[in-house]
Amino acid sequence: MSPTYEKTSTSPVNIAVIKYWGKRDTALILPTNSSLSVTLSQEHLRSKTTIRASPDFEKTRLWLNGVEETDLTKNKRLQNCLRETRRLREEHEKKLCKEIGTENVVPLSKYNVHICSENNFPTAAGLASSASGFACLVYTLAQLYELPVSTTELSKIARQGSGSACRSLFGGFVAWEMGSQVDGSDSQAIQIAPKDYWPELEALICVVSDAKKGTSSTEGMQNTFTTSPLLQHRIKHVVPERMKSMTEAILKRDFQQFAEITMRDSNQFHAVCLDTFPPIFYLNDVSRAIIRVITEYNTCSESGKLKAAYTFDAGPNAVIYTLRENVPEIINIIAKFFPGDVENGKEYFTDPYQLFSGSIIGTKTLPQGFNEQIIPVHAPGSVKQILHTKVGDGPQELTGETDSLLNEHGWPKRLA
Amino acid sequence: MSPTYEKTSTSPVNIAVIKYWGKRDTALILPTNSSLSVTLSQEHLRSKTTIRASPDFEKTRLWLNGVEETDLTKNKRLQNCLRETRRLREEHEKKLCKEIGTENVVPLSKYNVHICSENNFPTAAGLASSASGFACLVYTLAQLYELPVSTTELSKIARQGSGSACRSLFGGFVAWEMGSQVDGSDSQAIQIAPKDYWPELEALICVVSDAKKGTSSTEGMQNTFTTSPLLQHRIKHVVPERMKSMTEAILKRDFQQFAEITMRDSNQFHAVCLDTFPPIFYLNDVSRAIIRVITEYNTCSESGKLKAAYTFDAGPNAVIYTLRENVPEIINIIAKFFPGDVENGKEYFTDPYQLFSGSIIGTKTLPQGFNEQIIPVHAPGSVKQILHTKVGDGPQELTGETDSLLNEHGWPKRLA
Repeated sequence: MSPTYEKTSTSPVNIAVIKYWGKRDTALILPTNSSLSVTLSQEHLRSKTTIRASPDFEKTRLWLNGVEETDLTKNKRLQNCLRETRRLREEHEKKLCKEIGTENVVPLSKYNVHICSENNFPTAAGLASSASGFACLVYTLAQLYELPVSTTELSKIARQGSGSACRSLFGGFVAWEMGSQVDGSDSQAIQIAPKDYWPELEALICVVSDAKKGTSSTEGMQNTFTTSPLLQHRIKHVVPERMKSMTEAILKRDFQQFAEITMRDSNQFHAVCLDTFPPIFYLNDVSRAIIRVITEYNTCSESGKLKAAYTFDAGPNAVIYTLRENVPEIINIIAKFFPGDVENGKEYFTDPYQLFSGSIIGTKTLPQGFNEQIIPVHAPGSVKQILHTKVGDGPQELTGETDSLLNEHGWPKRLA
Repeated sequence: MSPTYEKTSTSPVNIAVIKYWGKRDTALILPTNSSLSVTLSQEHLRSKTTIRASPDFEKTRLWLNGVEETDLTKNKRLQNCLRETRRLREEHEKKLCKEIGTENVVPLSKYNVHICSENNFPTAAGLASSASGFACLVYTLAQLYELPVSTTELSKIARQGSGSACRSLFGGFVAWEMGSQVDGSDSQAIQIAPKDYWPELEALICVVSDAKKGTSSTEGMQNTFTTSPLLQHRIKHVVPERMKSMTEAILKRDFQQFAEITMRDSNQFHAVCLDTFPPIFYLNDVSRAIIRVITEYNTCSESGKLKAAYTFDAGPNAVIYTLRENVPEIINIIAKFFPGDVENGKEYFTDPYQLFSGSIIGTKTLPQGFNEQIIPVHAPGSVKQILHTKVGDGPQELTGETDSLLNEHGWPKRLA
């Protein structure tokens, strides 16, 4: 039996505060504008991937959430990531062969791999998993292949799996620089500030029910690119300025500036979706009610300062960024206007950091001056779950005995 | 007793296909872009106004839908219209005095007036009434004062009451040219084509329930003007081109071009509302479902041609422009996905032209190839009413004995 070449790692979700929407090159996944995101803690939202390379595997296989994906050759994005990491491994092997002799180098680049990947997201959440998934794939391959390359270099490979995956290779605050090269060699992620740079910043994810599955972001963004006159203005005249201001806001830990740009950029992303023909809608009535509630919360703020910032990706779920001190108040407000479904009550609020007791959720008092009339109390379950989380780390290697998703023979331990 | 100087007239509603949103001068009501609208028939939607001038009236009074408005001096927009029409009347009187002698000229410009105005809109409709209302005020004053001025000249006065009122002074297809003068002297309405120019064009108004009253358009458009980066691009680079193409589409009676620009411009108007900070929402989930239905209807069209165009003003109601031949099909589709409230069933479909029998509404068959899964059948009453109408005339003077809204003494016949 051959020795085991296997790695397991986890990767985080990231939520953009300057949104990526539109590709100038769909094959290389080169964006029409730079973007900036916050990496969220992996406590509750992460992808986990085990990859094993073996000369005994008759072909490369992939299992996603326990289901094997057949005909991997059709999965261009996966092939991009495999090809690019293998190419780097080959180069590395050549160099090693010269240094330590061919007999001491394992030709991993020639082996087939078994890839097993799982997301721990609540099924109900409908949170995008391609960013964390492709980041995890590329990171785990890099570990397995022992690639001597920087994370930023890796980000260019992850980008070819799923654009926003490049940002999930870093923890903390991450920019995806759009670059200008035709080959994509400068379209890459860089870290603006690490996870612990702004410890007061936290996030609440409000999982919103939606009857209808929205347009996929891959399809949607290209429709916007080809049909929206407003997108061109956003790309050329709005985002460059916002990238600078947002970077500055983060480095100064200036929540006012951070919050205003975050909300404005979420609004503008959904505006260009609406300017698409035919229009694309991701926000629903509950999403909009959450925007109204956060707007009112900021308006009635005693200090006159913004206390929370909403942002919405390609779906109805809200992510609310706020400072730690405001978290209980915001949870109470959300719980008051969007009560949990009683049958599902215990899962309504998820707080992995145990920061708040259940009783706080019960009070549902509103801050002074908050106009209760702005929206009605919604039907129970309109918000299915509130997930409390914080800024998190980049990909992590797992080395525990039971961490592998593959069994001793290199096949999934669990199938769906 | 003095002789009676009194006029009664009606004015239509207009629904823009290139939207007006944003003022460069709020006092003179000068817009940031030109706009273009279709005047709708007054059969079901109109304002009616009676104005009497008398030396016996101790002050100028206004009753709107049977309720007197107190302290008219605070109503700047009304004062604008009264001041400007009186000024023209004064000039006219001076000229008349020279021509026929002072003793033969009634000094109407010095008399107080009683103004009584009513809208015949279904209360539930929530359709904007300021356009038809101010058009009717100015038109009736012009008739009363026998002003020797063109309709386009009058439109500049109506514009100072409510921007879009200037377009309601004409029937058919009407452009509001934004103009460039600081004093507004070239910001005026012109008729592109009369009512009967395109007889196949008809409209369906879908009245959508809404729990929440939206932002007023006066307030909303200035917030967009001051906070939306995308509005600037719309104003400078999108609307001028669309005004040309839309004018051309109407003159060619080209429904393809008309429909596409109409839908794109409605989408873009709501996009800049969303790009406002804080964002403004007028579309709700039912509005968006109507957009999806019309998009699917156009997609499955056998000829590959657009058969219907939605447009939404500052509210959730849809106006669907279509050619006469498609009206029964569209009514059936809307009635299938948005059934009427049974208790309110007889008022669900309003068809003043008696074009369709009730049984057509009952079939609810979908056109071939229509994907029934795109949206669920909505709760009864989500669309409260479908109003079938067509292109209509401009303001009309009424001369019947019972047409006046004022009694013999010049006071309202009906109070609320």
